Amino acid sequence: MTDHAPTPAEPRLTHLRDDGSAHMVDVTDKQVTKRVASAQAVLTTRPEVVSAIFDGTLPKGEAVGTARIAGIMAAKQTSALIPLCHPLPLSKLDVDITTVSPEQVRVVATATTKGVTGVEMEALTAASVAALTLYDMIKAVDNRAVIGDIMVLAKAGGKSGDWSRS
Amino acid sequence: MTDHAPTPAEPRLTHLRDDGSAHMVDVTDKQVTKRVASAQAVLTTRPEVVSAIFDGTLPKGEAVGTARIAGIMAAKQTSALIPLCHPLPLSKLDVDITTVSPEQVRVVATATTKGVTGVEMEALTAASVAALTLYDMIKAVDNRAVIGDIMVLAKAGGKSGDWSRS
Amino acid sequence: MTDHAPTPAEPRLTHLRDDGSAHMVDVTDKQVTKRVASAQAVLTTRPEVVSAIFDGTLPKGEAVGTARIAGIMAAKQTSALIPLCHPLPLSKLDVDITTVSPEQVRVVATATTKGVTGVEMEALTAASVAALTLYDMIKAVDNRAVIGDIMVLAKAGGKSGDWSRS
Amino acid sequence: MTDHAPTPAEPRLTHLRDDGSAHMVDVTDKQVTKRVASAQAVLTTRPEVVSAIFDGTLPKGEAVGTARIAGIMAAKQTSALIPLCHPLPLSKLDVDITTVSPEQVRVVATATTKGVTGVEMEALTAASVAALTLYDMIKAVDNRAVIGDIMVLAKAGGKSGDWSRS
Amino acid sequence: MTDHAPTPAEPRLTHLRDDGSAHMVDVTDKQVTKRVASAQAVLTTRPEVVSAIFDGTLPKGEAVGTARIAGIMAAKQTSALIPLCHPLPLSKLDVDITTVSPEQVRVVATATTKGVTGVEMEALTAASVAALTLYDMIKAVDNRAVIGDIMVLAKAGGKSGDWSRS
Amino acid sequence: MTDHAPTPAEPRLTHLRDDGSAHMVDVTDKQVTKRVASAQAVLTTRPEVVSAIFDGTLPKGEAVGTARIAGIMAAKQTSALIPLCHPLPLSKLDVDITTVSPEQVRVVATATTKGVTGVEMEALTAASVAALTLYDMIKAVDNRAVIGDIMVLAKAGGKSGDWSRS
Repeated sequence: MTDHAPTPAEPRLTHLRDDGSAHMVDVTDKQVTKRVASAQAVLTTRPEVVSAIFDGTLPKGEAVGTARIAGIMAAKQTSALIPLCHPLPLSKLDVDITTVSPEQVRVVATATTKGVTGVEMEALTAASVAALTLYDMIKAVDNRAVIGDIMVLAKAGGKSGDWSRS
Repeated sequence: MTDHAPTPAEPRLTHLRDDGSAHMVDVTDKQVTKRVASAQAVLTTRPEVVSAIFDGTLPKGEAVGTARIAGIMAAKQTSALIPLCHPLPLSKLDVDITTVSPEQVRVVATATTKGVTGVEMEALTAASVAALTLYDMIKAVDNRAVIGDIMVLAKAGGKSGDWSRS
Repeated sequence: MTDHAPTPAEPRLTHLRDDGSAHMVDVTDKQVTKRVASAQAVLTTRPEVVSAIFDGTLPKGEAVGTARIAGIMAAKQTSALIPLCHPLPLSKLDVDITTVSPEQVRVVATATTKGVTGVEMEALTAASVAALTLYDMIKAVDNRAVIGDIMVLAKAGGKSGDWSRS
Repeated sequence: MTDHAPTPAEPRLTHLRDDGSAHMVDVTDKQVTKRVASAQAVLTTRPEVVSAIFDGTLPKGEAVGTARIAGIMAAKQTSALIPLCHPLPLSKLDVDITTVSPEQVRVVATATTKGVTGVEMEALTAASVAALTLYDMIKAVDNRAVIGDIMVLAKAGGKSGDWSRS
Repeated sequence: MTDHAPTPAEPRLTHLRDDGSAHMVDVTDKQVTKRVASAQAVLTTRPEVVSAIFDGTLPKGEAVGTARIAGIMAAKQTSALIPLCHPLPLSKLDVDITTVSPEQVRVVATATTKGVTGVEMEALTAASVAALTLYDMIKAVDNRAVIGDIMVLAKAGGKSGDWSRS
Repeated sequence: MTDHAPTPAEPRLTHLRDDGSAHMVDVTDKQVTKRVASAQAVLTTRPEVVSAIFDGTLPKGEAVGTARIAGIMAAKQTSALIPLCHPLPLSKLDVDITTVSPEQVRVVATATTKGVTGVEMEALTAASVAALTLYDMIKAVDNRAVIGDIMVLAKAGGKSGDWSRS
């Protein structure tokens, strides 16, 4: 299924123990600090579908709100979805959904906790599930839509310090 | 948050009712048929990280297997994650994880059901969560990795007939 | 904790076996038919809070949509919440949220399945959780709000035939 | 769907941002204190059904115990059910179920946490789901039963201080 | 971690594909039939703890009922707990908890479905989680209690025909 | 269902209140300390099935890894499965799966938290669900396999001090 050779400088994946088996790494003694992470996902579809999502003419088109709530609720399930993620109590969560071009909708999720591990996975999960929810609502009119550019935008707090993709 | 004007040809989103409110559409009288869908997600990272994921040297490196199980388990939670998705009983699920270039890992999920709606969302959810699980395991060594090209590859069964991207 | 005497005409609860222990009753051989149920819950609060919920002035106030999605998602979790409920595949779900008086918001949920048992519990769960979600959003401005009148409005399908509260 | 005009004194819902979109509000910097809340729900049915619930003649009638466990387990799922609720660790939970009149069963749930937000929603969710579970068990003998008077009875702890409905 | 040599007659695990990777096997075309399975778990503790569980003196000791409900609710989560299990709709579930010796409590769970796969895993999960729930309630008085003899007792329906241990 | 007489020295189950009803006990004021617990479960089957599980000949046989992930994910759901368990944030989790005799596979789970209650139930749940997952994968080749010897091996931290089964 794969034929590449191991690279000499192959980094160590901390989620695998010396024998290669998976585990939840030890965060018991890490410090409780405020940690923030933001991540995005981008849905690319046809311009008229982007219009339908944002629903310029209807007073209460709920496509965007539905995706936002899906993202918020998924973020709270992150440790149930991602096997080696530690559970942590989210203390704030925002999901922003905007058009960034005539055919692109961008979801940005920002998660905050006061805890012992970062919240990148929560932000990524929120953005991804919000984008999947948008896809679900448009798939009948554009099943060729694509979700991409899922990435961490910035994080703050924790031992590794603040960081932002530039 | 958005300033585009509604397009005349704006398609109707079936998940929204006439007043714009969201609902689960009626599939009560749709026919029970065998339905298959496959979808993918692609993780792009550094070549040595791809090597670490596939872990050429260790006898039982579980990174790939962990992502696969995460994808399978997430697929079964699709209707709990995507608000307007109908619950349906998956009858088969495969998640394949391979390298497609020195810096890219591709997840392909194929879902099958005998039911009244398609399983694109299950396949997309499996592929996305498997890719997020890979990201979780590598984020300590490459927090700039990107997940993209999430799309449906093919579907079969149901009224709309067979379809495959190409 | 209770001192009433048993009534001679005390009805038998089918969810309890002869020795009084709880179980999931047998629906194996019941017929698969289309079944519909609708149920409501009513939130009573101050008029200005009702206005804030429906948010007359803002373009995209999401209070109502958030409650609707909460109700839809909860309906799909009914058998996980109510211990003796059978799991069944919802094929349609609508949640309508309207003002019925200056100080009352009414949630009506209508659930449909093609299955072996009725969907009253799904409709009741959707209406209740939507109302609780509204309460959550207004509790900072009216912690004395009350949820009541939770009841089944009508049901159709199944052996017991159609029924509607008049 | 609603035609009331916004009231001048319309309060601000903190769960909605300035543009009306929903989010999980920021509790990151709130103080960790002991917080208690109690809430109730009341089921009204026929007297002989109340008797059947409390099951005066059977040695181990489990109707009440089943509803209690349903309430306890639902309380732990509150943040998964109510979209904008913060997850918090319950440190104590009691659910009391008593008759308050020949045709009324009252559920009182009392939740405690040491956390940054109140536990009203946990107490309300426990009481509501326990009452729905009672309804589920009696619906075959009284489908006209009604659940009402769902309200917070008292809360203690947190910045807003102690409060009790009188 | 293991040093045994592969046995020549090593059976094929159907949940693993030819390359050893896990998947959910294909049950799409299996026939829908009535399927029943029963399974047990046995908790061994001190005689006075067995007495406390069955609580001879109290009118409504809920230890046994709590374990029963835990088992019933866990059975409905089987496909969410066991990665390669197919979801299926339970149509009946009984959990019986009895003393089988002064120091042993036996849980027997019997699950029924009308579906395409057997329900052994549902019965085993119900029995195991009911026994774990009993352990949870007694661990403060006997942390040396042991759960064992978890096994399938009988199954009926499906292509492989009826079967019963003995 | 049981005919034993209550023993004079019958211990008090703290999960039951004076009237016998179940509740989540109060841990609000217990101290946050590091707590560790390990527990095991043992699967007994035929030697060639043990070989198939460990899959000596295939490069990536995922049976063991799948069971491990199932155990880790179940541990995070412990308070959702065991009705009276308090939710707590796991900070580390290891699941080791080894052969201990030609026909026995032993699962040992070790859980850690910084919290107010012990993590025995998390360790027991991880070990049990991992063993059930192994059973699921082998049931087609040995439906007479038995899971037993589920017990706590050691615990550390908390008021009751360190303890280990000798």
